[in-house]
Amino acid sequence: MEKLTLVKVGGKIVEEAESLKQLLTDFSKIEGYKVLVHGGGRSATALAAKLGIESQMVNGRRITDEETLKVVTMVYGGLVNKQIVAGLQAIGVNALGLTGADLNYMRSEKRPVKEVDYGFVGDVKEVNADLLADLISKGVVPVLAPLTHDKAGNLLNTNADTIAGEAAKALAKHFEVTLMYCFEKKGVLLNENDEESVILVLTPELFDKYVSDGIIQGGMIPKLENSFEALKAGVKQVVITRADQIHSANGTIVLL
Amino acid sequence: MEKLTLVKVGGKIVEEAESLKQLLTDFSKIEGYKVLVHGGGRSATALAAKLGIESQMVNGRRITDEETLKVVTMVYGGLVNKQIVAGLQAIGVNALGLTGADLNYMRSEKRPVKEVDYGFVGDVKEVNADLLADLISKGVVPVLAPLTHDKAGNLLNTNADTIAGEAAKALAKHFEVTLMYCFEKKGVLLNENDEESVILVLTPELFDKYVSDGIIQGGMIPKLENSFEALKAGVKQVVITRADQIHSANGTIVLL
Repeated sequence: MEKLTLVKVGGKIVEEAESLKQLLTDFSKIEGYKVLVHGGGRSATALAAKLGIESQMVNGRRITDEETLKVVTMVYGGLVNKQIVAGLQAIGVNALGLTGADLNYMRSEKRPVKEVDYGFVGDVKEVNADLLADLISKGVVPVLAPLTHDKAGNLLNTNADTIAGEAAKALAKHFEVTLMYCFEKKGVLLNENDEESVILVLTPELFDKYVSDGIIQGGMIPKLENSFEALKAGVKQVVITRADQIHSANGTIVLL
Repeated sequence: MEKLTLVKVGGKIVEEAESLKQLLTDFSKIEGYKVLVHGGGRSATALAAKLGIESQMVNGRRITDEETLKVVTMVYGGLVNKQIVAGLQAIGVNALGLTGADLNYMRSEKRPVKEVDYGFVGDVKEVNADLLADLISKGVVPVLAPLTHDKAGNLLNTNADTIAGEAAKALAKHFEVTLMYCFEKKGVLLNENDEESVILVLTPELFDKYVSDGIIQGGMIPKLENSFEALKAGVKQVVITRADQIHSANGTIVLL
């Protein structure tokens, strides 16, 4: 199988012109097939604020009411996605921006209300990657916005890490997939105050230990759970690192 | 060659939930391959107003400064486009939303400043329809937003009628294309106060006569000029009608 690298980058790096430009240049140099998944939370919060809509976050997830859904559709599906696509085309990468509704590639269901009503937030139920894989093999580079749909006419807000994990799993049937989660550190750190204390390898056993020791916490926990799930589903390799390190051998490698 | 119908609908009809739903149902029933091109000007003006950005129009075209470009990228490329795509998926149409930057399918150049500086407005220079035609032949229905790019990293605002005409011309190499411009009347009217006075057939000679008589004026002139140009470039048929009439034999047929 051919190699494919799926890179997920958080909001900040794609929301500032200079860092975005550097990221796209680095990304374009990845050999083989590739996919980019992006966030855009800071821009969404900024637009919401300008429109007088308060951004409510619970456990790092955005409560998405009807007006907020419009904001994220505009920001994730429009502004951020299309600026990335245009930026990639400028450096010769044949990018194609997608939400889960496009090509019906990712269907979700509105998250059931339990303790928290997240509103128009989707839990992924089905990924149709055949057409996507066909496009990729023709040299197209999908750029995935953190939006899915319920196939009943509604777009739903979906965490970009989840999109990356689900897309990686579905594409693993067609390619030898490396999933790369980029965030603001060089990798998962043993000591949050020491940038160089990167944990080089993480297995489920080490993960459990580090979680119970309080070394791994917060948003890193679902990211790593997604990673193990992706590996179990056939993804070849998961790497957690900083966006400017995607060509180095640095970062945390997640293994089963 | 297989038949393809390219329908262009203006802003209003896609910007209200009820009329959009009816349009998408009517559109989904068109037999053979199809493409939808949409506007979204009213929503763009509304969002701009909420953000304190004044919408300046000259000859029916929006002056697009940097902030306005962000607004139209969000509204055309995000909100309106993705709502249409999700709405079509809900009724079994495998839609794919695109700006000209996606798949680099439509490249433009920033309009030179003459009497008017339109800002970030693009004049179409190149249409790459091969990948689009391939997707269409696989059952995908492209939904085209009125945005192009300059392949130097910039999105550009481009009139939806122009997008429709240029896409129709490029697709005419692959399909037998009918281009359908929908607006608020049943067709081009002989008497603007008589909804039933539809001009059934328009040729370049009749067009010149009606223009000099003042019967055809305003935004209809570039629409018809686009139509003749499309026919000359190989488009099989151009029809100008109301969106709710796309299945009837009503409307104005434009011929060479």
